[in-house]
Amino acid sequence: MSPLTVAIDAMGGDHAPDVLIGGAAIARERYPQLRFVFFGDAAKVEPLIKAQPLLIDCSELVHTATQISPDEKPSVAMRRGKGTSMWLACEAVRDGKAQAAVSAGNTGALMAVAMLLLRTSPAINRPAIASFLPTVRGESVMLDLGANVGCDERNLVEFAFMGAAFARLSLGLAKPRVALLNIGTEDLKGNEAVRGAAQILRETPDLPFEFTGFVEGNGIAQGEADVIVSDGFAGNIALKTQEGTARLVSAYLAATFRRSIWSRLAYLLARPALQALRERLDPNRYNGGALLGLNGLVVKSHGGTNAVGFAAAIAIAADLALGNFTTKILDDLKRIAPATAPEAVVPAEVTVQS
Amino acid sequence: MSPLTVAIDAMGGDHAPDVLIGGAAIARERYPQLRFVFFGDAAKVEPLIKAQPLLIDCSELVHTATQISPDEKPSVAMRRGKGTSMWLACEAVRDGKAQAAVSAGNTGALMAVAMLLLRTSPAINRPAIASFLPTVRGESVMLDLGANVGCDERNLVEFAFMGAAFARLSLGLAKPRVALLNIGTEDLKGNEAVRGAAQILRETPDLPFEFTGFVEGNGIAQGEADVIVSDGFAGNIALKTQEGTARLVSAYLAATFRRSIWSRLAYLLARPALQALRERLDPNRYNGGALLGLNGLVVKSHGGTNAVGFAAAIAIAADLALGNFTTKILDDLKRIAPATAPEAVVPAEVTVQS
Repeated sequence: MSPLTVAIDAMGGDHAPDVLIGGAAIARERYPQLRFVFFGDAAKVEPLIKAQPLLIDCSELVHTATQISPDEKPSVAMRRGKGTSMWLACEAVRDGKAQAAVSAGNTGALMAVAMLLLRTSPAINRPAIASFLPTVRGESVMLDLGANVGCDERNLVEFAFMGAAFARLSLGLAKPRVALLNIGTEDLKGNEAVRGAAQILRETPDLPFEFTGFVEGNGIAQGEADVIVSDGFAGNIALKTQEGTARLVSAYLAATFRRSIWSRLAYLLARPALQALRERLDPNRYNGGALLGLNGLVVKSHGGTNAVGFAAAIAIAADLALGNFTTKILDDLKRIAPATAPEAVVPAEVTVQS
Repeated sequence: MSPLTVAIDAMGGDHAPDVLIGGAAIARERYPQLRFVFFGDAAKVEPLIKAQPLLIDCSELVHTATQISPDEKPSVAMRRGKGTSMWLACEAVRDGKAQAAVSAGNTGALMAVAMLLLRTSPAINRPAIASFLPTVRGESVMLDLGANVGCDERNLVEFAFMGAAFARLSLGLAKPRVALLNIGTEDLKGNEAVRGAAQILRETPDLPFEFTGFVEGNGIAQGEADVIVSDGFAGNIALKTQEGTARLVSAYLAATFRRSIWSRLAYLLARPALQALRERLDPNRYNGGALLGLNGLVVKSHGGTNAVGFAAAIAIAADLALGNFTTKILDDLKRIAPATAPEAVVPAEVTVQS
């Protein structure tokens, strides 16, 4: 069993540190080789760890009394974040003390601190945020979800490779179907970046995934692709529109069951099934945005997550670390025409802890 | 009662001409002042009109045997579309024989032909496609839905004005709440175009709407704004993601009711209520994309619409024509700083038929 240490920002998020420690215990059940380094206020965190039998023997606690506040600006976090729980978690990855960091704190601050400490991977021009979303077939991976507002064709191609590696490691797909998010499926549709990326992907031999062309917004939830590649503006909007629409339909549904005495009775009968539906649509199931393209792994959890959701974010970190995502992606990207791909020179030790 | 003539491309769409004539009859019931000019194959269209008592006295039929095929390229439609049913319908608007045209034909061809024949309004730099979408509060207007892949700040400001006028006339809102679609609600979020448009709108006095700032993807379905303004790439993706997600949740729901004998029984009891839910989410209810910003009104219906959906598209055309949208928007846009707004010189006769 490979060693696997995950650094946890134990102070980030709305319900820290309780649900974070609870989530770590749930994740440990699924990954028995998992070890943790928690960064946070020892007075609060230590009793929680001691209360979890699964965590006692595999956890280290590093005390820090400071944390980055939920509304801190990224620039301020970069200047003054040193020594905070989030900063120390990312630093542990940089220094090889952990293979991945997980935080439920402020997204902008986490991205800024992670980029500052870990730096962009030499084969990648722009990092991206990737996450899961529900489809009729199960789940798909989408990226970028907001790290970059504008992207060129090369950025999108890199996202395609990173998304495919993510889907291989976390969804266990041998050859994921990868598509570019666009406003039509014909070759001429969309902006230059999307059309240019499609051309590069079509011309690259031996892709480690199946490039299926374009996918439209209505194809996302139909599971038309396992990996949906987009710039961070459209990707963020698609993801959040999906969340909002699922909530809209749930609201309509609740109103539907209040319509008549028969529908109220129906609700009582269908309650267990409807509870299962609610769980299927529960955003905590899809919690965890991986920040891909750095010299090390960082996963962002929703700030309002519960313990099960935080465990899902840790699972993403574990799957990517166990599959050596950071070094694997450097190999994968060598397939792109060398004219545009910088030589990969990062040593393997950056992510594989000795 | 103002005179109101709508030109109908009677040959466009999957179920032409049957559902189109049926839709016209439904629309006539709601707008007794409505008159129609149908363009299409007389052998097919004439018997259908004669079968509708509501249409006999208010319809003119102009025969044409040619039509633009569903997969014709826009460039080809512009070169060879002359004399087709779609072309003639747009020409009727240009020549003042109708105040608006409605077509369920090929979207790209319709946009190309409409822009060629009607030209962009002198106060507008780029036309946009606007449509309704369902929210927890009722419905909102969103634009652009795909006419423009990239937009600058001035384009977005014009879309805000056009969307607000659309919402006033078609939803009857005195002062619609208008927001820019973005990936965050803070001032610094998003791309230059979105931030620049927000600044112009904040600085423009006496807006004929309430500018509420930014809305994220998850705010669309929550009805956070009556008008959602976006470039055509993100707007198209948001709209189609919403459609796809509604279908996903419906599929989940159907599976939920098949889970057990109790949930099957529940389905039987709740069937009338669930039927109402299905109707509420029926895309035909929100059918009709208005092509705004030309010297005349053109409305695009979904190709696969039913008669009720086609009537909804005609209703949009009727509401905008009755409210003199095309001339009204020229007045509205005079409020933007004159440095960027070209002088409006289009004569009122372009849209108000004598």
